[in-house]
Amino acid sequence: MKLIGFDTKYAKGFLKEHAAEEIKARVLAAKDTLLSGSGKGSDFLGWVDLPEKYDKEEFARIKKAAAKINQDSEVLIVIGIGGSYLGARAAVSFLESYDRKRATEIIFMGNNISALYVNTVLDQIRDKSLSVNVISKSGTTTEPAIAFRIIKKLMEERYGKEGAASRIYVTTDKARGALKKMAEQEGYECFVVPDDIGGRYSVLSAVGLLPIAASGADIDALMLGAASERAYLLETPYEDNPALQYAAYRNLFYENGKKVEILADFEPFMHYVCEWWKQLFAESEGKDGKGLFTASLDFTTDLHSVGQLVQDGERNLIETVMEVDDTGAAIQVESDADNYDQLNYLAGMDLNYINKKAQEGTRQAHVDGGVPNLVVNIPKRDEFSLGALFYFFEFACGVDGYTLGINPFDQPGVEAYKKNMFHLLGKEGY
Amino acid sequence: MKLIGFDTKYAKGFLKEHAAEEIKARVLAAKDTLLSGSGKGSDFLGWVDLPEKYDKEEFARIKKAAAKINQDSEVLIVIGIGGSYLGARAAVSFLESYDRKRATEIIFMGNNISALYVNTVLDQIRDKSLSVNVISKSGTTTEPAIAFRIIKKLMEERYGKEGAASRIYVTTDKARGALKKMAEQEGYECFVVPDDIGGRYSVLSAVGLLPIAASGADIDALMLGAASERAYLLETPYEDNPALQYAAYRNLFYENGKKVEILADFEPFMHYVCEWWKQLFAESEGKDGKGLFTASLDFTTDLHSVGQLVQDGERNLIETVMEVDDTGAAIQVESDADNYDQLNYLAGMDLNYINKKAQEGTRQAHVDGGVPNLVVNIPKRDEFSLGALFYFFEFACGVDGYTLGINPFDQPGVEAYKKNMFHLLGKEGY
Repeated sequence: MKLIGFDTKYAKGFLKEHAAEEIKARVLAAKDTLLSGSGKGSDFLGWVDLPEKYDKEEFARIKKAAAKINQDSEVLIVIGIGGSYLGARAAVSFLESYDRKRATEIIFMGNNISALYVNTVLDQIRDKSLSVNVISKSGTTTEPAIAFRIIKKLMEERYGKEGAASRIYVTTDKARGALKKMAEQEGYECFVVPDDIGGRYSVLSAVGLLPIAASGADIDALMLGAASERAYLLETPYEDNPALQYAAYRNLFYENGKKVEILADFEPFMHYVCEWWKQLFAESEGKDGKGLFTASLDFTTDLHSVGQLVQDGERNLIETVMEVDDTGAAIQVESDADNYDQLNYLAGMDLNYINKKAQEGTRQAHVDGGVPNLVVNIPKRDEFSLGALFYFFEFACGVDGYTLGINPFDQPGVEAYKKNMFHLLGKEGY
Repeated sequence: MKLIGFDTKYAKGFLKEHAAEEIKARVLAAKDTLLSGSGKGSDFLGWVDLPEKYDKEEFARIKKAAAKINQDSEVLIVIGIGGSYLGARAAVSFLESYDRKRATEIIFMGNNISALYVNTVLDQIRDKSLSVNVISKSGTTTEPAIAFRIIKKLMEERYGKEGAASRIYVTTDKARGALKKMAEQEGYECFVVPDDIGGRYSVLSAVGLLPIAASGADIDALMLGAASERAYLLETPYEDNPALQYAAYRNLFYENGKKVEILADFEPFMHYVCEWWKQLFAESEGKDGKGLFTASLDFTTDLHSVGQLVQDGERNLIETVMEVDDTGAAIQVESDADNYDQLNYLAGMDLNYINKKAQEGTRQAHVDGGVPNLVVNIPKRDEFSLGALFYFFEFACGVDGYTLGINPFDQPGVEAYKKNMFHLLGKEGY
């Protein structure tokens, strides 16, 4: 099975010759720091070996729970925010399609404080059979806690306390915290947010796996893709190693004054993969006054929106473009006798082919315009490729962060708004 | 009725004293350039007086067409890209809610080249009664032209040539172009993309109005909001003028080395307003190597994603935060006897109140962290406020662009990718 491809040929011309060789020693040192667990944040390296060393007993329970959910629920409400949300959302959006609908519909909640959003969900689920997966390490994060308080009450009114308990699945700390305590008291089935994996690296733990499995996806193939990518990245020399090359070029461009990295896709189903990537890199590296600003664009739609700026605005951008070889969908442009729209030159071509040409044309335009392009190749819209993609970005991010000289595994700045909010809301102790 | 509010008090401390006074003459000169039509791009100033001087006969036809669509169609497919897409999408997303569903469901197409997306839409509309609004000045823009070729065939198969013609509405050039010609031949009802209004400024023309009206929204109130905001912005002195102040601060921060403007919201229904804003500002100002990079964030969800970077990454950011006073929705946190989640301190509070405190806490955190905050206040989630908001941003953008010294009404860079793509696809003449 093909793994993630990475191409630097549309980027290297923007750097001095041998730049990638000159940074090689630093990138390899960062890789060693990561793999030896000798760097900052080394308590959070559980994701490195996860595709091989995951808990097989829990994995089997996840599949069993997903099967039960598929059998008794039209909707699974997944309550979580940040790392307890974006991985599952990315996977579900990437994999679902008109001819392979979700086994159970997934509705995400608890990632905002919007009354309108909550009421909209309550309206949507009024007549649907329900299960819930609430995901929170502590159980007291405000957004998911509010949502779960509302949904728990609804579930108990609808199914009774015991019936609700059989439909509520908790993913939380293995031993401590408010949600763990509640689960024990109420008899909810529990899955584990591992102690040594931060939220943004947790998609291949129970955090991501239960919702992904419940959507009908093959999580064995997802893990196999991640494990295969891991094996490849661990053993491949620097010059041919996609993750090490990505880390090298990100750092090189940052050191050369670039300020913004755009992650671009050409397919709507990639949108939430970009959102997941934004958290991974922004939360890992946006600290100590450092880090590329992370933006994502969906092409070609955004070429008609911010395309002008990418083409001709400040030249402080780099662009990483994800291309998917096999999208699993096809539709041809047909010939038309009138040809008012002058599209007959496209007749007989598939949209995937035209889209590929749009990618090539865009790359050429942006490179000509002064924006270095890095290309990430995803062989197929399936679980194996997605698992490989998740691992590729995670591994690249860890190496990238150590090369940059920050701790890629903490997020001290995330507390600031919460503390202020708690104070304003009159929470005890703030 | 309240208009758009704007507050600079969380931003001015980041600039030297009297900075806003020092740039006043330049901003007022830019305003004069705009209103006198003496600047670059002055052929595209039709939007300035549009809220007063719109075509009343066409406006009545739009309402009539919308009423027919509501009567005979479960789905209106709106085909367009960029400025022929984002305004309507922003309005429809902003206004719809669980207790005020769209009169006709709106599905947007023709803003990508994704086979999967097209097939997904074809699957969704299989059993639905349909109308179509295709929006394109020329009628040959690739993305919408492909979508319309597919949908036109489907409509004719389903309704016959004549039946389809009565359900297809064209918004295009008043006299020329491929789509105008097709409409005349086929007998489609036509609405006008005005010659003197560029795509990104066109939401209050037929481009935006037909889909917005078909969704069930009150377009009279939308226009009244825009007209009221226009009157206010034209007559209010610099010091109290929201649009002039916004233009002043954007330019001041840009001249002080800021590189990225984040437009943030705290409600999911605002997401596409941000997307519309991104096109408006990025396409107007991202040229000649200039312009703030435009990004948008949906809080609080993105505080758990890129919040770390906003709080503590490179200090080259400014943040403009949109707050909505009356969202039209309410739900309280209830008390819970067990209080496992420790949320009882919020019992009796409405989510709108908690969300407001999250806004205040976030603002304080980001300002403390070195990110100047500008605040845009939207009185109500309704048509009047939205019309005012559209006009506020448009007017600010025109003044802002002239202050920056570029032509805010062209977009020469958007052609680059198209030319390359046409060449790669073998289009004649490329």
